Amino acid sequence: MEETKEKRIELAAFIRWINEKGWSPGTSTNYSFLHPEQEDKIVISRSGIDKTYFSEDDFMEIDREGKPAKGSEGIKPSAETLIHCELYNLFPSTRYILHTHSMPGTLLSGKKEWEEAITFSGYEVLKGLPGISTHESEVELPIFANDQDMDRFRLLIRDNQNRLQTGGFLMAKHGLYAWGNSLQEAKRHLEIYEFLLTCELNLLQIR
Amino acid sequence: MEETKEKRIELAAFIRWINEKGWSPGTSTNYSFLHPEQEDKIVISRSGIDKTYFSEDDFMEIDREGKPAKGSEGIKPSAETLIHCELYNLFPSTRYILHTHSMPGTLLSGKKEWEEAITFSGYEVLKGLPGISTHESEVELPIFANDQDMDRFRLLIRDNQNRLQTGGFLMAKHGLYAWGNSLQEAKRHLEIYEFLLTCELNLLQIR
Amino acid sequence: MEETKEKRIELAAFIRWINEKGWSPGTSTNYSFLHPEQEDKIVISRSGIDKTYFSEDDFMEIDREGKPAKGSEGIKPSAETLIHCELYNLFPSTRYILHTHSMPGTLLSGKKEWEEAITFSGYEVLKGLPGISTHESEVELPIFANDQDMDRFRLLIRDNQNRLQTGGFLMAKHGLYAWGNSLQEAKRHLEIYEFLLTCELNLLQIR
Amino acid sequence: MEETKEKRIELAAFIRWINEKGWSPGTSTNYSFLHPEQEDKIVISRSGIDKTYFSEDDFMEIDREGKPAKGSEGIKPSAETLIHCELYNLFPSTRYILHTHSMPGTLLSGKKEWEEAITFSGYEVLKGLPGISTHESEVELPIFANDQDMDRFRLLIRDNQNRLQTGGFLMAKHGLYAWGNSLQEAKRHLEIYEFLLTCELNLLQIR
Repeated sequence: MEETKEKRIELAAFIRWINEKGWSPGTSTNYSFLHPEQEDKIVISRSGIDKTYFSEDDFMEIDREGKPAKGSEGIKPSAETLIHCELYNLFPSTRYILHTHSMPGTLLSGKKEWEEAITFSGYEVLKGLPGISTHESEVELPIFANDQDMDRFRLLIRDNQNRLQTGGFLMAKHGLYAWGNSLQEAKRHLEIYEFLLTCELNLLQIR
Repeated sequence: MEETKEKRIELAAFIRWINEKGWSPGTSTNYSFLHPEQEDKIVISRSGIDKTYFSEDDFMEIDREGKPAKGSEGIKPSAETLIHCELYNLFPSTRYILHTHSMPGTLLSGKKEWEEAITFSGYEVLKGLPGISTHESEVELPIFANDQDMDRFRLLIRDNQNRLQTGGFLMAKHGLYAWGNSLQEAKRHLEIYEFLLTCELNLLQIR
Repeated sequence: MEETKEKRIELAAFIRWINEKGWSPGTSTNYSFLHPEQEDKIVISRSGIDKTYFSEDDFMEIDREGKPAKGSEGIKPSAETLIHCELYNLFPSTRYILHTHSMPGTLLSGKKEWEEAITFSGYEVLKGLPGISTHESEVELPIFANDQDMDRFRLLIRDNQNRLQTGGFLMAKHGLYAWGNSLQEAKRHLEIYEFLLTCELNLLQIR
Repeated sequence: MEETKEKRIELAAFIRWINEKGWSPGTSTNYSFLHPEQEDKIVISRSGIDKTYFSEDDFMEIDREGKPAKGSEGIKPSAETLIHCELYNLFPSTRYILHTHSMPGTLLSGKKEWEEAITFSGYEVLKGLPGISTHESEVELPIFANDQDMDRFRLLIRDNQNRLQTGGFLMAKHGLYAWGNSLQEAKRHLEIYEFLLTCELNLLQIR
């Protein structure tokens, strides 16, 4: 673990910042990065940690199939570890994966009328998402039904790979996954989606 | 009091954190823990303290019937002390009780149409509550009418013991009680309920 | 000024805390306390100061009619100084007066249908207001039309003295005045009214 | 650059404060000031910087037509640099220009029914805007359609100069520009408009 200490410190600080925003209630949410030197390893947040106090020691190492790696044996990884594994496999340039559990993401993903996606249209901030160069764009943030069976959910993501080109998706009544080729990029995608979800929620609340 | 100093410091910091979130307006809310060595004693916040500046010295010790214990004679405990006493009696594994007074809790508990409970359904975050292992659950957060007569209110809680298995209830236009076997667990229950109340309020505000 | 330094430091810290909450946009809002030794003097915030950076040096001394006192000649007091003078005269036990400019207070005071008052009913937190001992109470927070003529507005307050027994009033589309016999009490009244205004606004936003 | 170091430190701190409020999601927003000694130079934020960590080194110097000045060759200025250039030309006393990307500004500017302006009426806080001395005023905050062609957008601003006398405008689904003769004044205009946008959004959300 020692060789990733700096990255773990940086990501832990980011996780506490996320928590301050109210985006990780209870012990929800999880976070990972690809080991910078050993790409067969993923460094991921442990299960059940309160993100208010999350530290660089609250990570563990797993292999690309979600099994605890040497030095992390016996530690329980997040229940959603396989989602991380699958995203790293589907998008090989991905280096960081972030999962938040904000109120707007939880609420909007649970509305029946949007069973498949929320569409954002005409927003300047869309230009911060992969492949978008003008506000005259439409971006679909896919919504997948929540599932406790992670093997099944992993296949669902794989089957929907073509819908995951803009760096994020929602699990219904569960929250947002966002990723990128660096912490900076993953953070940018995350912030943009959280911002847009807040916009859309407030728009729906206008009489 | 000296032997509980570390726990008082920890809880006082948590109380100021609650206050920063706006969940303890005026001098509202109260907090307690069971004395770790003398289980006939409860350490509870004093009455009338502004939680912005709450410190480890703003606690007192009471017995299991709410009377000031030796060393705390003449200090006024919170008006709602008997609620704490009753919860420790009903749920013997409880170690911490937390009471917040947030806007969503205050407002939603006062809606006439929900005179008995608010039901949360299908949320991933429900898995952080006692006995819940899947999002495919329904959890009822009981609402009790507010009452200035604490002897009467205490009996009401006792009569409703079977509805209090998921670690929380609301007093109408008054706020949330949440508890757990540790500060970490009580905090988790509290955050989950506050998060869900905010979700439900925003859902009701969608046109 | 020197003899009030400690009180100015304490109030300035409180003012920056108010600002952090977003309750003093632009250079709005003003604050005062009665000189603790010379009751013919009021210590009040100067005009036009950004509250983000408000310090103990941003006060001045005025007499009970709002004229700059010795040592503060040539400094411009807040435009609303006469409101403070009148409240100290009407309620002789008052020691602190606080004026915020929050979004809920600004917005709700401007609704035509509440030209005279907002009524708060059944809230536990009402018990923190003067003379209220049960949640089974109704408290009216008076709303007065905004006015640039402070001599006229002062008379309006005087004429409505009997409606000002619970420590606060609103100026329409302008904000809240709250006061008390100590900073602690004035802060309590302020927080309670701001909390209740947020509740009522959210209640109106439920479909 | 060295001679503007103090001003860059001051503005960078302000930019991080803006970010904390959630008004600069992703790498959105930009900020500038006129070089205090060489009025043919503008100091402006670089393109693509996350404002969470914005520092005094994240500025660059450009000429009045938006070209990188000596010492800043090869650095990419913000895409919206020409908006800054045009505003400094149209309003020669302007010293600071601030651009935020808040949720209320983004959302309200995108409502079809307000294609040209949002009108604020009767608010006390209007008195903090240029030329307004009473709350009995109406101020129009112009809304311009978003545009990726900055040469064209610049002309649009020029043609609407007479509508820009109160220190701000909105770009649809993009955010607010505000300016002033000092950082203090520009900040005041910015805060007032953001406050009023939040008021109007909440007003529209009342049932």
